[in-house]
Amino acid sequence: MLKINTNFQKLPGSYLFSAIAKKIENYKNANPDKDIIRLGIGDVTRPLTKSVIDALHTSVDEMAHEETFRGYAPDLGYSFLREAVAKNDFEKRGCDISADEIFVSDGAKCDSGNIQELFSLDNTVGVCDPVYPVYVDSNVMAGRAGDYIADLSKFSNITYMLCSAENNFAPNLPEVMPDIIYLCFPNNPTGATMKKSELQKWVDAANASKSVIIYDAAYEAYIREDDVPHSIYECNGAKTCAIELRSFSKTAGFTGLRLGYAVVPKDLIMDGCSLHDMWARRHGTKYNGAPYIVQRAGEAVYFAQGQEEVKGLVNYYMQNCDTILNGLKDTNLKLFGGINAPYIWLKTPDNMTGWDFFDFLLEKANVVGTPGEGFGPGGNGYFRLTAFGKHENTVEAVKRIRSVL
Amino acid sequence: MLKINTNFQKLPGSYLFSAIAKKIENYKNANPDKDIIRLGIGDVTRPLTKSVIDALHTSVDEMAHEETFRGYAPDLGYSFLREAVAKNDFEKRGCDISADEIFVSDGAKCDSGNIQELFSLDNTVGVCDPVYPVYVDSNVMAGRAGDYIADLSKFSNITYMLCSAENNFAPNLPEVMPDIIYLCFPNNPTGATMKKSELQKWVDAANASKSVIIYDAAYEAYIREDDVPHSIYECNGAKTCAIELRSFSKTAGFTGLRLGYAVVPKDLIMDGCSLHDMWARRHGTKYNGAPYIVQRAGEAVYFAQGQEEVKGLVNYYMQNCDTILNGLKDTNLKLFGGINAPYIWLKTPDNMTGWDFFDFLLEKANVVGTPGEGFGPGGNGYFRLTAFGKHENTVEAVKRIRSVL
Repeated sequence: MLKINTNFQKLPGSYLFSAIAKKIENYKNANPDKDIIRLGIGDVTRPLTKSVIDALHTSVDEMAHEETFRGYAPDLGYSFLREAVAKNDFEKRGCDISADEIFVSDGAKCDSGNIQELFSLDNTVGVCDPVYPVYVDSNVMAGRAGDYIADLSKFSNITYMLCSAENNFAPNLPEVMPDIIYLCFPNNPTGATMKKSELQKWVDAANASKSVIIYDAAYEAYIREDDVPHSIYECNGAKTCAIELRSFSKTAGFTGLRLGYAVVPKDLIMDGCSLHDMWARRHGTKYNGAPYIVQRAGEAVYFAQGQEEVKGLVNYYMQNCDTILNGLKDTNLKLFGGINAPYIWLKTPDNMTGWDFFDFLLEKANVVGTPGEGFGPGGNGYFRLTAFGKHENTVEAVKRIRSVL
Repeated sequence: MLKINTNFQKLPGSYLFSAIAKKIENYKNANPDKDIIRLGIGDVTRPLTKSVIDALHTSVDEMAHEETFRGYAPDLGYSFLREAVAKNDFEKRGCDISADEIFVSDGAKCDSGNIQELFSLDNTVGVCDPVYPVYVDSNVMAGRAGDYIADLSKFSNITYMLCSAENNFAPNLPEVMPDIIYLCFPNNPTGATMKKSELQKWVDAANASKSVIIYDAAYEAYIREDDVPHSIYECNGAKTCAIELRSFSKTAGFTGLRLGYAVVPKDLIMDGCSLHDMWARRHGTKYNGAPYIVQRAGEAVYFAQGQEEVKGLVNYYMQNCDTILNGLKDTNLKLFGGINAPYIWLKTPDNMTGWDFFDFLLEKANVVGTPGEGFGPGGNGYFRLTAFGKHENTVEAVKRIRSVL
């Protein structure tokens, strides 16, 4: 008789954004005439740029002719893209990462969820609290998280590293380093960053304890301040302790196109094994590469025109951050983030929970954000607004929020 | 200290097709002037068809404009595609499968590798022998396969269901049904099929033992005989015991475009849990949907023109099967398959191993096939040729093989 993976049953409720979608749908059904502005899910709204569109059309035409048709992509990605990534995202920043340490994927969400397969089930896991839910949920499904403690909204085997106003939303180094540490900076959801000197301490501690850091840098393109590292490999010794995950979703608007990559350095030898070789094996066995046309679109982002266009996208969204920060600064909301990340993290008024504030904004202002609790117990009483809306909608949302506070 | 997932170390050697690629590369480096014909890896060679190309261009243009741009796809796939699949692949064949039982993915390889995540690690697993390596390898990585017994080329906890000339390469029902049973028909690599009445016995046995059948129907488009089922849901009771995996790769030449789907019926309740809900949760947490433009390309396959084009592709490749079967029938090779599948499975001459025959054909005829051992110990002494080459290459390959036998 088949036995199911009972770890799935430990997951409380449904995935955050599915739960939010359901709430919005219910509200819309009851109030079909209301115009809702969504600053909730971190999905982009600007169309793909000209370079990317041109690269897609050109490569689609290649697929129409026998001489230029491409079948299976190389498991680990086409060289043209891996080389463009190594050169532009790492070499130009002084990071010694080679093309064959880049593993092209269909996005950082998949990589975030799958990377834990490389590790034994009896490792300890540390996550920032609050944080993007995939790190915890994928470890729960695998059976590494222990049991859910409903009173605390925590799993028994996960170390929750609190990120609060007191530590500028960058966690303190734990007294005992977990074996697997997820860090996401610039952070989703708080928009916080770590300076290079701070991140160096984590790298040193991970090397000392032989822990691995999964560094999610999906938002690095939004960094506007100079002393904030774009890659963990800007720190000395990161190649022996860190995997970095990157995405084209937020950088170049690829949420609907699906492209990302993981960096697994060859120097990353853990427990006597090369994580680079293990990830290559994982890709070879369970993955079949990102579409050729999408990899060509990714390559186009690195050409001179593509780089200019991407800057334009980032500036557009960061202008929304400025609109929200300036528009709400003299209210009773305490605002964080929005300087080096496309997220505004705010303390709810009157000790409301994040879900209460979600319902309040949805019903009174017809504005959707994301309740902080969705990102972990440390998000209780906080709320996330994203900068990914259309500018005119963002202006209107700020006006509406001000009017109901 | 981080501990790795030591199950990875149990995998013998590298992934089959990576090993073959390396052998070819070595031969080419030593013999740069030789013209090698590849009938090895099952990759298509015909360009994408007009309907698909048109759908790609149209949807790429949508992505260029704010009004029609699409961000994140629905986790489980766009309705337009799920509905087209349900109607054309199931309703038209009398199978009662609804659109919301279709889970769109980036291909059957990923689904084949990921589906085992739904099941407890202490289930027993049964696979056809020989068979597509992903089923075993993904269970090894998860820790469900036990230890590798080098003498037998088998894993201790896997039930290998022998497929040989004696049973027409369709396995006998095991005396004790494994909890998880992988069936792939039309079969990769043998090209064998199961008649509906045979498959019905498996469905009945799985329902009786409360086992789950993972039915890989990636090659159903190649079926030419009437009494061969295209879907397991043509059998009574399959909705309570079977998951079906499908692919656009071989049907419509999407190997480089990446699109497939899994069917997980709502009636599939196992161990008290809905596998449909579990797979939805898995998709929601660890996957972000197939690209919009690729889903539109998939939809185009179901329109009248697309269906005609796909028939043309299939006929082109099946003509290659006929060329191989007719061209080699009076040799000392015993030939199987090639009637309802794009694979020819042959018994090597003179009791050569599959790898010996691989080296022999590569060196003497400059033709690449796939050694049977790559698909499991039951493949020893067999060899696979695919019909996915260009027709003129297939004709030439047959000529060369004849000349060296």
